[in-house]
Amino acid sequence: MTNPSTANDISSLPQKLRVLLDGKRDYDIVIERDVLARAGSIIKERFGDRRLFVVRDPRVDAHYQTLFKSLKDVGLRVDDIVLPEGEPAKSWDCLQKTIAALLEAKADRHTMVLALGGGVVGDHAGFAAAMTLRGLDYIQIPTTLLAQVDSSVGGKTGINTVQGKNLVGAFHQPALVLIDTATLRTLPDREMKAGYAEIIKYAFINDPEFFEWLDKNGRDVLIRMEGALSHAIATSCASKASVVAADEREAGLRALLNFGHTFAHALEAACEYDRRLLHGEAVSIGMSLAFDVSARMGLCHDDEAARAIGHLIRMGLPTKIADIKDFPRISPDMLIDNMSHDKKATGGRLTFILTSGIGRAFATRDASMSCVREALAASMRHN
Amino acid sequence: MTNPSTANDISSLPQKLRVLLDGKRDYDIVIERDVLARAGSIIKERFGDRRLFVVRDPRVDAHYQTLFKSLKDVGLRVDDIVLPEGEPAKSWDCLQKTIAALLEAKADRHTMVLALGGGVVGDHAGFAAAMTLRGLDYIQIPTTLLAQVDSSVGGKTGINTVQGKNLVGAFHQPALVLIDTATLRTLPDREMKAGYAEIIKYAFINDPEFFEWLDKNGRDVLIRMEGALSHAIATSCASKASVVAADEREAGLRALLNFGHTFAHALEAACEYDRRLLHGEAVSIGMSLAFDVSARMGLCHDDEAARAIGHLIRMGLPTKIADIKDFPRISPDMLIDNMSHDKKATGGRLTFILTSGIGRAFATRDASMSCVREALAASMRHN
Repeated sequence: MTNPSTANDISSLPQKLRVLLDGKRDYDIVIERDVLARAGSIIKERFGDRRLFVVRDPRVDAHYQTLFKSLKDVGLRVDDIVLPEGEPAKSWDCLQKTIAALLEAKADRHTMVLALGGGVVGDHAGFAAAMTLRGLDYIQIPTTLLAQVDSSVGGKTGINTVQGKNLVGAFHQPALVLIDTATLRTLPDREMKAGYAEIIKYAFINDPEFFEWLDKNGRDVLIRMEGALSHAIATSCASKASVVAADEREAGLRALLNFGHTFAHALEAACEYDRRLLHGEAVSIGMSLAFDVSARMGLCHDDEAARAIGHLIRMGLPTKIADIKDFPRISPDMLIDNMSHDKKATGGRLTFILTSGIGRAFATRDASMSCVREALAASMRHN
Repeated sequence: MTNPSTANDISSLPQKLRVLLDGKRDYDIVIERDVLARAGSIIKERFGDRRLFVVRDPRVDAHYQTLFKSLKDVGLRVDDIVLPEGEPAKSWDCLQKTIAALLEAKADRHTMVLALGGGVVGDHAGFAAAMTLRGLDYIQIPTTLLAQVDSSVGGKTGINTVQGKNLVGAFHQPALVLIDTATLRTLPDREMKAGYAEIIKYAFINDPEFFEWLDKNGRDVLIRMEGALSHAIATSCASKASVVAADEREAGLRALLNFGHTFAHALEAACEYDRRLLHGEAVSIGMSLAFDVSARMGLCHDDEAARAIGHLIRMGLPTKIADIKDFPRISPDMLIDNMSHDKKATGGRLTFILTSGIGRAFATRDASMSCVREALAASMRHN
């Protein structure tokens, strides 16, 4: 892992990180304003005259036009596969359609798939690429903050089934990630904040300096100040990439990336994954719960937990279950029961990511369930 | 790769080979008569108390009972997923059913899948395991000679779609391969011969000594003499394993395993993949064609090609298209056109595996198409 520029050097754009896996599958993350307009020359220079299929969200037409033009300008052959909006794209049915489209159009082993859109598009397109001809190369071009700092790095791809979300999928690393910060200009504020929750997560896990930086500059990230935004994205990608490089298949270290997520998944399930609660918002509440449980268990100082949660509040993120509008009437025990169905549960016991302070998260199977229950009950109270 | 016992030492059963990949995913192939009855203790000793799902062919009831008893005897929890007979199991629909069954039964990341049956079952079960929770461990327990020497080693899994066979799939290496030679006792002679075609293929590719051994002992393999059978299987698995280890994702060396296969796939397609032509029979004709083309191009001595083809004839295998009953009336050019749709074609040019003699195969994109046409025409003539 090459480090991104440090906090004192945030003007040195564009940024490039290299994700080190096993040599053969190493890849770059390029973070650059308006990089979409240069995508054609970047792709042609790195991969040669490959045939390309863009798999994309229907709502990114303007970005697609920019991308398409830059690919055409260097003479690359491009086809376009447009997915339905939102989570329905992560279905068996939709996945089969994408694969059939690739095969009908006579994709061969040198064909590349470009995923243009948010996390849903990346998960769908990456999985389709993984399975077609037993694995086509693909490029992630994430257009939401959440996807830029989270799902586009790490190689997790997949779909949802009636049994649950992301229970079917593949580990398939991208050949390149292109992050165009300009695509965030039109992103709704609520989605910017939700993406920010995943950024602050990296600070909470193992980077107290990044926390100090975000505590000062977080607002600039949210209002899309170019330097702050690029630095936050690059630091997040670098953090995720270093964890992924160390532990590609999530046996241990990678589990820390699930900080706040066991709670988050249970809350999202309770909200039926609808717009009441965005994933990043659920993660914000989940991380607050993780700090609270850790404080209640005496693992983390109360002041430290309060400081972490206070930061989330100042950034305009929800930190309590009571903050969710129209949250269903369910008990802490029902939520705990939901968590046990999370796929991270193995052998029946729940793994929690807890913390001994900002920047010091750890995985444990020995969480006190009474502290978890108390934290959930407190989180549900309006006060 | 540990070498199997040599030709002079064929009594030293059972045999165990280790497939070396990257350290973490290395696995053993155990070749042993009646190993099914010991499967429980082997699996428990290696993998501990894992929950198991057997995915199997409906026709292997007797083998399943043996396996089930041995697993139960050591206290392992076993569920059973029975597939439809034959190729229909390699469909999207059927694959989704297996994955749904695994998820409904609350499979977790420590669950293992056991594939019991022929190549179809291995391809289906391995692919289902690859996708469920982004990858469950699985064990191959092949019960046909073809699967024992070919598809159960190497990690290729997949299904068929309307666009073609095996165009959708994953590379997913098994955690263990258990080969019980006793399962071949009830295998029809025609299928034994078809499996033998894949055995002799390894000799043709790069092992002239193995050819000499098979030329002497091939008949003993077909009549299931235990020592000869185990030696032939072990040598074949070792050969495939060494190629797979060197080149897991088929960029170069692994392509040699397709010796005879470009022709074979076109012939199978012409026969609509029905019982007129088993895969191994198609490979036998395909290898004969590869020798003939090589001889016509002056790459291989005529006597050498005649010796190779003569061996196949003596073993009761078809070597000419004219040997196929009810082969459709199609021209050499139509067959060549079929080959171009094979997924091994990249950038429009056909890769052929040709040979400069027994044990000396090589890949080339410079085959003489007029020699290919002549060889096909000769192969179609009854004389």
